[in-house]
Amino acid sequence: MSIPRSHGGGGSDWRDTLEVVRILARADSSLAHVFGFHHLMLATARLFSQPGQWQPWFSQTARLRWFWGNALNPLDDRTVCIRHGGWSEFSGQKSFCSGALDSEMLIASARDEGPGTLVVAAVPTGRTGIAVAPDWNNIGQRQTDSGSVTFERVRVEHHEILADPGPLATPFACLRPLLAQLVLTSIYLGIAEGAFHDARHYTLHEARPWRTSGVALAAEDPYVLGHYGDFWVGLESARVLLDRAAGHFDAAWARDAALTAAERGDAAVAVATAKVAATRVGLDLCTRMFDVAGARATHGGLRLDRHWRNLRTHSLHDPVAYKLRELGEWALLQRHPEPSFYS
Amino acid sequence: MSIPRSHGGGGSDWRDTLEVVRILARADSSLAHVFGFHHLMLATARLFSQPGQWQPWFSQTARLRWFWGNALNPLDDRTVCIRHGGWSEFSGQKSFCSGALDSEMLIASARDEGPGTLVVAAVPTGRTGIAVAPDWNNIGQRQTDSGSVTFERVRVEHHEILADPGPLATPFACLRPLLAQLVLTSIYLGIAEGAFHDARHYTLHEARPWRTSGVALAAEDPYVLGHYGDFWVGLESARVLLDRAAGHFDAAWARDAALTAAERGDAAVAVATAKVAATRVGLDLCTRMFDVAGARATHGGLRLDRHWRNLRTHSLHDPVAYKLRELGEWALLQRHPEPSFYS
Amino acid sequence: MSIPRSHGGGGSDWRDTLEVVRILARADSSLAHVFGFHHLMLATARLFSQPGQWQPWFSQTARLRWFWGNALNPLDDRTVCIRHGGWSEFSGQKSFCSGALDSEMLIASARDEGPGTLVVAAVPTGRTGIAVAPDWNNIGQRQTDSGSVTFERVRVEHHEILADPGPLATPFACLRPLLAQLVLTSIYLGIAEGAFHDARHYTLHEARPWRTSGVALAAEDPYVLGHYGDFWVGLESARVLLDRAAGHFDAAWARDAALTAAERGDAAVAVATAKVAATRVGLDLCTRMFDVAGARATHGGLRLDRHWRNLRTHSLHDPVAYKLRELGEWALLQRHPEPSFYS
Amino acid sequence: MSIPRSHGGGGSDWRDTLEVVRILARADSSLAHVFGFHHLMLATARLFSQPGQWQPWFSQTARLRWFWGNALNPLDDRTVCIRHGGWSEFSGQKSFCSGALDSEMLIASARDEGPGTLVVAAVPTGRTGIAVAPDWNNIGQRQTDSGSVTFERVRVEHHEILADPGPLATPFACLRPLLAQLVLTSIYLGIAEGAFHDARHYTLHEARPWRTSGVALAAEDPYVLGHYGDFWVGLESARVLLDRAAGHFDAAWARDAALTAAERGDAAVAVATAKVAATRVGLDLCTRMFDVAGARATHGGLRLDRHWRNLRTHSLHDPVAYKLRELGEWALLQRHPEPSFYS
Repeated sequence: MSIPRSHGGGGSDWRDTLEVVRILARADSSLAHVFGFHHLMLATARLFSQPGQWQPWFSQTARLRWFWGNALNPLDDRTVCIRHGGWSEFSGQKSFCSGALDSEMLIASARDEGPGTLVVAAVPTGRTGIAVAPDWNNIGQRQTDSGSVTFERVRVEHHEILADPGPLATPFACLRPLLAQLVLTSIYLGIAEGAFHDARHYTLHEARPWRTSGVALAAEDPYVLGHYGDFWVGLESARVLLDRAAGHFDAAWARDAALTAAERGDAAVAVATAKVAATRVGLDLCTRMFDVAGARATHGGLRLDRHWRNLRTHSLHDPVAYKLRELGEWALLQRHPEPSFYS
Repeated sequence: MSIPRSHGGGGSDWRDTLEVVRILARADSSLAHVFGFHHLMLATARLFSQPGQWQPWFSQTARLRWFWGNALNPLDDRTVCIRHGGWSEFSGQKSFCSGALDSEMLIASARDEGPGTLVVAAVPTGRTGIAVAPDWNNIGQRQTDSGSVTFERVRVEHHEILADPGPLATPFACLRPLLAQLVLTSIYLGIAEGAFHDARHYTLHEARPWRTSGVALAAEDPYVLGHYGDFWVGLESARVLLDRAAGHFDAAWARDAALTAAERGDAAVAVATAKVAATRVGLDLCTRMFDVAGARATHGGLRLDRHWRNLRTHSLHDPVAYKLRELGEWALLQRHPEPSFYS
Repeated sequence: MSIPRSHGGGGSDWRDTLEVVRILARADSSLAHVFGFHHLMLATARLFSQPGQWQPWFSQTARLRWFWGNALNPLDDRTVCIRHGGWSEFSGQKSFCSGALDSEMLIASARDEGPGTLVVAAVPTGRTGIAVAPDWNNIGQRQTDSGSVTFERVRVEHHEILADPGPLATPFACLRPLLAQLVLTSIYLGIAEGAFHDARHYTLHEARPWRTSGVALAAEDPYVLGHYGDFWVGLESARVLLDRAAGHFDAAWARDAALTAAERGDAAVAVATAKVAATRVGLDLCTRMFDVAGARATHGGLRLDRHWRNLRTHSLHDPVAYKLRELGEWALLQRHPEPSFYS
Repeated sequence: MSIPRSHGGGGSDWRDTLEVVRILARADSSLAHVFGFHHLMLATARLFSQPGQWQPWFSQTARLRWFWGNALNPLDDRTVCIRHGGWSEFSGQKSFCSGALDSEMLIASARDEGPGTLVVAAVPTGRTGIAVAPDWNNIGQRQTDSGSVTFERVRVEHHEILADPGPLATPFACLRPLLAQLVLTSIYLGIAEGAFHDARHYTLHEARPWRTSGVALAAEDPYVLGHYGDFWVGLESARVLLDRAAGHFDAAWARDAALTAAERGDAAVAVATAKVAATRVGLDLCTRMFDVAGARATHGGLRLDRHWRNLRTHSLHDPVAYKLRELGEWALLQRHPEPSFYS
């Protein structure tokens, strides 16, 4: 979808691609996650490498319907890269590798044995030495298969390393974490919208008015309506903020190598703002949805707790408190977030 | 400003006019109030009457720099309209008459003695029988002179009554309360922005770091930065929601008599959403600004309590709880707010 | 435990019994639930019947270690009581029958076919016609077996019916719902304390400081400490309110038949206040515990989501909004909550 | 009131004295402030000096009805103490000197020129060189006269210096800041109770039901009742926490020199918990009271904004964020607050 038409893809802009992530997340946030991360991995190749590298990958991906998985987790530094003449070797483990299990290609990272810098590469998942474990077992996002990948002396060719410009090396390359954050934000908001949709269904069709409410239908209860009013303000806030941030991002993407650090910083602030709003409204809604859906909505068969479990799990990707700190630095000191894999 | 160029005015759209209201409110929310209500009164004439009525008023207003005041308060039904042959008579009082004191024209309302319906008219403030009292004395919006107006057998000509289509008689006429709500929202957000600006000034230039904070400047304190991050998310949410609502409103305005009830309803939902958000972020910020500005910011000479007093006073115009209820009815039941002078 | 020593029991007061409920709930809120409801069922017999009825049940319970289950749900009116000469017949279903599955005795309710009033009886679970279904399958409180009970022409003797004074017939009998609410409050607070305990364990032993935090340990992070400060204030508030409410309840219990409606009302207000506080702090803590425990605390093997699932399920017993309304009626109008099975 | 009967005083314990502070604050938080600080100053003498020093002061205070003012602000280090043989000299300024203006005695502090330690003394306000300025002009607590005091080469005798054990030198001496915090907490809660009382009066006697509420009285409005329910839970939480903390404090006070650091720490945690709760519920209530009292409650003559202004001003004494941090350190690390003039 996000691959340009010139390389056989759908040529969608990011706003549209992210909207698909969000729509998927309403029904299945795990699917949305691996879908979104697939496109994030493609964008990673695009942003960190030269056209001679990413163009063939894009064309093959579109033609062969490759799926890209994630083995980049920069906080997990157990995988080491040993440089040899003309090629390198990755050894070690990576956790939280969403979508790796059924992928054709992986974006993997390792610490360079020497300088300790992060080396990022695109390698076929089937390469000798790569083992993807089906060991993901968490309370949410259960179908993302975000388990571990083991690299045992995996040979990585020079042209597979995303070294020019390399990770976060230019303002344009620094769009990568912003796209990651937008994918997350779209998933969070999609989960919230799914929870809202389910709550609404139960309030309208299953919930009973409280015995002292004096109304005939739960949907006429003043407190139930008050909850929905809150939900609406929260959802709408997150929706307009996300929409604006996605627009910022598309504009920044279109600037390509001309993108300045300040322009990238403005986009980063818009993205962070949307992410905080989506996280908050989502967690709130996933808990309060039961207050309007009623006790019977806790029936196990409905699995309505999955919204909270999915969002709670995924929203721990990076702390809200530090996002707020960054936004505070912007608001107070006009200081843009320092680019990193999380900002 | 809002008067079309064809009638000698500035020809601004509502988004721009509302932005001026907001910018004024950052510095002086009373001035913003009377400025905004002046334009609201003009719009009232435009929406409730025929071109043969409002066009001369618009032209004269632009040429003679008339200022329009408010004596419409529909909740205060003490003013009565007695119908005579060809003319009518207004007698009674009106409270909360913002901007009436220094106005050339008034939009006034009265209850029709017979059917009890609301009669709205445009009359010169100087007309015999009209007395504007300088009796406004409230904890906030002190310079709005929102005092009382007394009508003592005031003669109102037939052509001065806004009867065709009349108050809230068509979807287009029902844009009036939405504009009123947008003016309020712009003021609330402007107050919040002014409070933010003042807080920022004090944090940067006056506040001292707390003794156990371990930082050299208040602006580096993690909790202070956290507050500013919150402020930012709140302000940005309200800003994008207000911007979207103003856009909705301009689009609805452009539809003129073709505007449908459903289109008007969609605009009403967007406006109400923005208003709730602005109220909340504003009240929160006007209190918490002191947590980041420090104890010395309570010095009387700074008058920083005026932000809270202004917003607290003005935000009681109509209850947030019922705005949320309306939004809840929309979110849950897809029922648009029923048009009234408050929705 | 709650049975008086004179009848072979432990003779604990309610404060102590409720503390055991709370301590159990820290580790296993389902166990706490059935334990608490067992004592609630005994108290129901005590409060609604004559000594000639409840004393033998108490003695046998203590001697034979009977466990009492719940089939009283007054909101489920599918079970009907048909009066015969000297005996009655219960037919129909009851939902949310916590602890019924492994019980020796049941407190069951039915609607009297004639007047429609609630008939409550104590019957052996093994009686012919009673079928307890293992059909409880909800997202939380999974081990409570709060499934359904079917009565198929179950014979209920006259002396098994708790008719004198009967359900909620006197202020003293009206202590029953307050005890139910105190059991719930104790469970909610116990869950919150368990979540706090688990969070603390993970912050201290597993969580890693965020990369830009500038601290060596997660336990030194200013935002993590801020969360714990919030948790503490919330937990302490709920603890002192519950302790006070339990004391009120013991005092009201000691008054026995002399208890006045006003005294009962004061106890009801104290109980409701504690319940609202425990619900709020609990839901907040069960979500935010992950913000201080870190992403790895979502590992499925830890089952830390169970706190939220248990509390979310159980806290829907009756709506917080109506508890707040009752407290508002007290605060504003000095009107005591009207006794019911929920207040 | 707090002076022991043995020295001619009322012999009240601190719980009772603090309750008077709270009751006064309901009507006039400035009066409560100077009343509470008078007793705090006496306690300062008691805790920091020897019986040979404080006993005469106590007796004279009771007999001559002396009023004690505050000139201790430890954050303002502009006043310097120069040591001479047998006497000392204070020179410089002090800000936030509550109650100094009409006092007979002052507790004053200065930085020791040499080691930089804090020197605290009890001196007659009328002594040569002391000038109390009527320069307090802040948005709240306006009648506290918390202005500045200037010391111009003020002679302080050796026996007037509270040097044995001296400021915060023993666990018992460290009760002083806890008493200060309890006085503040009592004032905050008293303000909140006063605001509640005023809100209730307006809801019951002045407020009108909203036009779409469907109820005849504002006091029957479901959202108004919901607000009052919230207010009640907040007020009750703060009340029980303050009551418990005052009890802790009286018990610690009774331990006298035998008080251990751990016992003092436990009392400090109880006090800080109550203070955070009172601050939060108070600020919330002082803003939301208008939502239930209606627009007309903003009339200037009612001065209902004074509750917010008083609390907002006074609650900046020391930051809530750092109180929460201390409570977080206790909750997470079992680390007691480090004694200081604020903890």
